[in-house]
Amino acid sequence: MLTDNRYGKAENRVVRFYKENARHEIRDVNVTTTLRGDFEAAYTEGDQRQVLPTDTQKNTAFAFAKKVGLDTVEDYAIALARHFHETVEPVSSARVDVESYGWQRVSINGAEHDHTWVRQGPEVRTVAVTAADAGTWLIGGIKDLVLLKSTGSEFADFLVDEYTTLAPTNDRVLATSLDVHWRFGEIDGIDWDEVFAGIRATLLELFATTYSRALQQTLYAMGSAVLERFPVLAEIRLSAPNKHHFDYDLDRFDIENKGEVFWAADRPYGSIHATLQRADAPDAGTAWSA
Amino acid sequence: MLTDNRYGKAENRVVRFYKENARHEIRDVNVTTTLRGDFEAAYTEGDQRQVLPTDTQKNTAFAFAKKVGLDTVEDYAIALARHFHETVEPVSSARVDVESYGWQRVSINGAEHDHTWVRQGPEVRTVAVTAADAGTWLIGGIKDLVLLKSTGSEFADFLVDEYTTLAPTNDRVLATSLDVHWRFGEIDGIDWDEVFAGIRATLLELFATTYSRALQQTLYAMGSAVLERFPVLAEIRLSAPNKHHFDYDLDRFDIENKGEVFWAADRPYGSIHATLQRADAPDAGTAWSA
Amino acid sequence: MLTDNRYGKAENRVVRFYKENARHEIRDVNVTTTLRGDFEAAYTEGDQRQVLPTDTQKNTAFAFAKKVGLDTVEDYAIALARHFHETVEPVSSARVDVESYGWQRVSINGAEHDHTWVRQGPEVRTVAVTAADAGTWLIGGIKDLVLLKSTGSEFADFLVDEYTTLAPTNDRVLATSLDVHWRFGEIDGIDWDEVFAGIRATLLELFATTYSRALQQTLYAMGSAVLERFPVLAEIRLSAPNKHHFDYDLDRFDIENKGEVFWAADRPYGSIHATLQRADAPDAGTAWSA
Amino acid sequence: MLTDNRYGKAENRVVRFYKENARHEIRDVNVTTTLRGDFEAAYTEGDQRQVLPTDTQKNTAFAFAKKVGLDTVEDYAIALARHFHETVEPVSSARVDVESYGWQRVSINGAEHDHTWVRQGPEVRTVAVTAADAGTWLIGGIKDLVLLKSTGSEFADFLVDEYTTLAPTNDRVLATSLDVHWRFGEIDGIDWDEVFAGIRATLLELFATTYSRALQQTLYAMGSAVLERFPVLAEIRLSAPNKHHFDYDLDRFDIENKGEVFWAADRPYGSIHATLQRADAPDAGTAWSA
Repeated sequence: MLTDNRYGKAENRVVRFYKENARHEIRDVNVTTTLRGDFEAAYTEGDQRQVLPTDTQKNTAFAFAKKVGLDTVEDYAIALARHFHETVEPVSSARVDVESYGWQRVSINGAEHDHTWVRQGPEVRTVAVTAADAGTWLIGGIKDLVLLKSTGSEFADFLVDEYTTLAPTNDRVLATSLDVHWRFGEIDGIDWDEVFAGIRATLLELFATTYSRALQQTLYAMGSAVLERFPVLAEIRLSAPNKHHFDYDLDRFDIENKGEVFWAADRPYGSIHATLQRADAPDAGTAWSA
Repeated sequence: MLTDNRYGKAENRVVRFYKENARHEIRDVNVTTTLRGDFEAAYTEGDQRQVLPTDTQKNTAFAFAKKVGLDTVEDYAIALARHFHETVEPVSSARVDVESYGWQRVSINGAEHDHTWVRQGPEVRTVAVTAADAGTWLIGGIKDLVLLKSTGSEFADFLVDEYTTLAPTNDRVLATSLDVHWRFGEIDGIDWDEVFAGIRATLLELFATTYSRALQQTLYAMGSAVLERFPVLAEIRLSAPNKHHFDYDLDRFDIENKGEVFWAADRPYGSIHATLQRADAPDAGTAWSA
Repeated sequence: MLTDNRYGKAENRVVRFYKENARHEIRDVNVTTTLRGDFEAAYTEGDQRQVLPTDTQKNTAFAFAKKVGLDTVEDYAIALARHFHETVEPVSSARVDVESYGWQRVSINGAEHDHTWVRQGPEVRTVAVTAADAGTWLIGGIKDLVLLKSTGSEFADFLVDEYTTLAPTNDRVLATSLDVHWRFGEIDGIDWDEVFAGIRATLLELFATTYSRALQQTLYAMGSAVLERFPVLAEIRLSAPNKHHFDYDLDRFDIENKGEVFWAADRPYGSIHATLQRADAPDAGTAWSA
Repeated sequence: MLTDNRYGKAENRVVRFYKENARHEIRDVNVTTTLRGDFEAAYTEGDQRQVLPTDTQKNTAFAFAKKVGLDTVEDYAIALARHFHETVEPVSSARVDVESYGWQRVSINGAEHDHTWVRQGPEVRTVAVTAADAGTWLIGGIKDLVLLKSTGSEFADFLVDEYTTLAPTNDRVLATSLDVHWRFGEIDGIDWDEVFAGIRATLLELFATTYSRALQQTLYAMGSAVLERFPVLAEIRLSAPNKHHFDYDLDRFDIENKGEVFWAADRPYGSIHATLQRADAPDAGTAWSA
């Protein structure tokens, strides 16, 4: 009757510094570990003998920040997931999710400071590694990447039914907060930071340069350009709220508003999703099972 | 290359009153609609001719609050999902998610007021309906149900490795914020409110009365009691953070703390999940595909 | 040049149980301590010799949960504030803010369980105590008390200028999330729980029974009734967003909407504030200085 | 008995574009308006004849985004506050609060895009203008400016009492999320953007370069440098949580942790406040009355 189960420690807020010389480095991450395996007795009989405490998982996440290091979050996550999978007997599959927060070195009169940073955001870099008997999967990503363009977007010629009142528009604001996750087809010999930077730049470029007849089209353009430019990727998933900006009617006050003044609404919002996969993509296994 | 896509309107905040007589009724819900189907041209070519605007979906969600009514959120969600599936040609599958917020009638000297309420929470009742060619699925649920017990919980005899430092305990606080979702095996002739009340009562009862050797065991006890008492259910999924309460060390101040004073921590937290399914459960189809 | 300063420890999440017999009691609070006094050298010279660490304040907040107890949050807050003021030499004034979260005992077939609770909300009970040379002030309160009435509210006959487009209405939804704080004129011999329950009931009653020509009027009616019924209070401050509910236009779909279907908007919202004070109220001193 | 009152429209999410040429400009702000004046009859009698609807205030906030423009948020806020004060008869004092969100132009192969931006944060620029009979006050500010330094901070030699258990440290992480607000002594002829950039740079510089014996000392150093470098300011107020980073004990696993691995805690946190004022500062009037 118990058909699936998993458990772990969520949101370990690990901060790691490198202090080999006066110019320090910072890594600021949020680590969640999740184990699957032979834990049924804990559920059905309260028998913990196979259960590695979530407190131990926490200790391990912090210990690996030093032992393995956080030079890249990807290598850290791979090492941590494989540790649980390979050394904890009942574990059949271990997943490690990492969110990585950006910090910019403080500049003083143009000179970067050695050990002081200011937080960047709201965008967050993510990685999810699954280590299982069948292999290791890695999904990179970015979330809360908020983008807006003030023109180059329309929405018209859509399906109409009895509840349709929307007027078509040939020039609107397009704004979204992107969550994008990409699955690597292989994980050896990757320059993680270079690939991440390249994908982020591609997402921004395509959002900016695609003349958008719908957010769907923009997502597809971003996703297919990423897959095209980065053959190491097997699949990409994009989620994007359509953050509506409504023209504010100023005619009522004899003020002209030629696409200049908008109300940025909260709810409801459109919600668009797309998954693109290479035709010859290797199997995803349980890579996407949160 | 486009292997999956969906779109819709998220978080329509619909409030519906019944005012047939002086004693009004309130329904306060958050409605999200999601459509799957033949929308590929919108992604690949920006062709919207098959795309029903999300603005239309919003209008429909509000219109159905009157046309169908919100006597129960379940019947409303079924009607709305089937409307999209049956009347919008390119739609192959429509999903409607509803969160329902609780309001308690204000009492004045013991008498309930006719048209004034105070909001209850944090718990939220949920329903997710999927209408597709193969049939209609309904998943009921409750989220943010925060429970705590001050005794009757232990955690000991667990697996130990080189990173384990946790001391076993034979009396601890057990606290969680439950998200539970249950799939109905059939959806005709159900008294939705009665079943919901019964499941909620069962969850509370089993949390209280199960002597817990781990949160895993408590989840399993809750889930199996629900399936046992409600044969109309096919499956139940439980997610539960372990909201840690740590004994505060008062010995340092010569003050005795016999399980009386705790620090309620935020992060990290344990995270436990279980899925229980009846052996003869009908197929879930795409019921769980958010 | 340093004209004001204060420091403290914010959001100590203290949970206290009473376990004298099988029927346990729970107190779940969030404690913030703030000290004012002779701390200038810490700012101007980095000299900490007068500074009691915020870590010590945390320890004290937890220790007092046992030593003084949390029978009422008011007596706990008074004791803690006076402790800092009276025993820590440089402190001229100590403030203790407590938020108290509600828990309801779980019922099983009508019988209350001894040691299991379900969290209530969103409303939160508050207390703020200031202990200074001139005396001790106590401000009670409630926040996030969300109220709604489906009729008995209008808004018309208002001032009109060139930017006014609002149509008057003689029947609307009135909804708010109240933050109300009341200052006691004296603090000895008060039955804190009884007074709190009475004030809460008065707020609900007046919100329900006042025919509202504006949220301003409703706030005033609530505030003056509280001051009238509770002579022990010197002053009351009410803050209330006007949580707008807009009629959804269903005429477009040939559906009648007679005040039945509304869209509950997020932002912007009205924001109304009122302070009422008894004519002979004692001086507030620094009671309101957060 | 009604001793204070105010009302307004909160959180108008105004977005303004400049499209005079192909290279567009964006202003993304959150505007709150608050009026004080002769509104007593609305409270005591429900008489709205003196009350300008909050809906009108909303319309005005959007209209002024075009009419006055948002070249700088400061000039916009001054114009809007003065409009309410000067043209709405019962208004004795009008306050306009603006939060301004940062957007960075998207770069494609080093070239800035004309009409696409990516959101920057979490820091937010603020302005609060009060227009009253006695004059106009302006308070500039920045909030959610998250800073961290990995060394150059200690905390020792502090006051000790019976509840003190903290060990002194001579090298710790110092992290905070600054809210800083500065009052201008005059408001004519100011280059708002230049002053803002200068103050922000000063705050960052002093946080980085001050060897910190306490967060109090750092705040004072920042505040006094700002007042010194910007004679146009009369006063500055700084609020700063001490976002604790605790050394993670890795000795237990035979791993050395020389100030490299920390746990970033959520709650409780220290909370430090300082107000610095020039000796000859003009009166603040009601500038700080939210």
